Amino acid sequence: MGAKYQQIVEDIEKDIVNGKYDATKKLPTEEELVAKYEVSRTTIRKAIGILSRKGYIYQVQGSGMFVREAILKGYVSLETLRGLTRDFPDRDISSKVVSIEVLEAEEALARKMKCAIGTNVYYVKRLRIVDGNTFSMEYSYYNKDIIPYLNEDIAKASIYTYITEDLKLNIGFADKVIYADKMDEESCKLLGLEMSDPALVIENTAFLNNGDVFEVSKAVHNYKYAKLLKLATF
Amino acid sequence: MGAKYQQIVEDIEKDIVNGKYDATKKLPTEEELVAKYEVSRTTIRKAIGILSRKGYIYQVQGSGMFVREAILKGYVSLETLRGLTRDFPDRDISSKVVSIEVLEAEEALARKMKCAIGTNVYYVKRLRIVDGNTFSMEYSYYNKDIIPYLNEDIAKASIYTYITEDLKLNIGFADKVIYADKMDEESCKLLGLEMSDPALVIENTAFLNNGDVFEVSKAVHNYKYAKLLKLATF
Repeated sequence: MGAKYQQIVEDIEKDIVNGKYDATKKLPTEEELVAKYEVSRTTIRKAIGILSRKGYIYQVQGSGMFVREAILKGYVSLETLRGLTRDFPDRDISSKVVSIEVLEAEEALARKMKCAIGTNVYYVKRLRIVDGNTFSMEYSYYNKDIIPYLNEDIAKASIYTYITEDLKLNIGFADKVIYADKMDEESCKLLGLEMSDPALVIENTAFLNNGDVFEVSKAVHNYKYAKLLKLATF
Repeated sequence: MGAKYQQIVEDIEKDIVNGKYDATKKLPTEEELVAKYEVSRTTIRKAIGILSRKGYIYQVQGSGMFVREAILKGYVSLETLRGLTRDFPDRDISSKVVSIEVLEAEEALARKMKCAIGTNVYYVKRLRIVDGNTFSMEYSYYNKDIIPYLNEDIAKASIYTYITEDLKLNIGFADKVIYADKMDEESCKLLGLEMSDPALVIENTAFLNNGDVFEVSKAVHNYKYAKLLKLATF
């Protein structure tokens, strides 16, 4: 599955995240990649183009390709939709499921989820914990017509893995709105913070690749630990 | 300047931001774009691929190409490095220059700027105002070996326009670290907020396309107005 250049992109991304280039920050040359993957130079150039636009690498005329250092420092990346587990491959991630229930979408939620008022939705509250520290409180709604079943075991592990690998749905893209806000009481208590502490909020609307909304969520992050990384290109 | 597909990407981006597709959210077909721009289908596909990866559009098999709605709502985009003026084409943007001075980089700053300790740097403090509301306080350092001259007039207009159009430097990419924090006294006072209000902070390290750091900055945003948008793709 996936085009050859896409597999090469994923393979090089994995090498970067796993620290293969930490010492020199220099990637193999185009010629070396052609030899390694046994593909055409066009395919390698396509993969390199994507890695550049994603912000993983940059090219210096005459000197070669280099890894952008920020990618190596353990922030939450805004580049992918793959979740905390993939952003922090070396860290201990766990989730405490606070509640799961089925609700009927009222007007405001239905508008956000682009579904009919009264549609059944799962409402999941999870506390995410990274290396023993409370990291975020997630309040998520899933359209039950798209995600027909959810339970605590699934929510405790990875909902995204369940959606892609068990339900075989094709996740397409997500809109994330990021802002600072005052702390709300429930998140404050569960994160173990003070009401005077600031909150880093991410509102997420996630779409299948046919444009249907399957998830609308709000995550309130512990400001002590949550730092987001965005790699921008001019 | 710029490849043909790059010009098409910029042209379609402009149409999207200017609201050309607000009513239907549907883009022209590949055939229509081939006819409009008088280029090959390969060139159009290349442009469409880039617009998809940048998060501007999505494709639905059999139905066509659509604009992602979040792009239309006036958030600060994390996709580009072009500054507030381009993110808010319809809004009134101004800057108040609080101070400009030349300093010698001490150890911590020199490490961030990848320059020698003692290198001369411009230190610029600016208050950004959007539609009459205080939007952010920016604290920025520029390496004087790269940006040899800055003054209040330039800082009041657009430093990025000066760097690219007057100094003819090639801006390459930037690492942005985003987090929430407690308010500091200076930003609080200049933004007209309370010390108990949360701050949305963006730390920015900006590079020329040869990998040299020309800017290190910290922007403290007014949580009432600053909402960032990230369009993510799976």
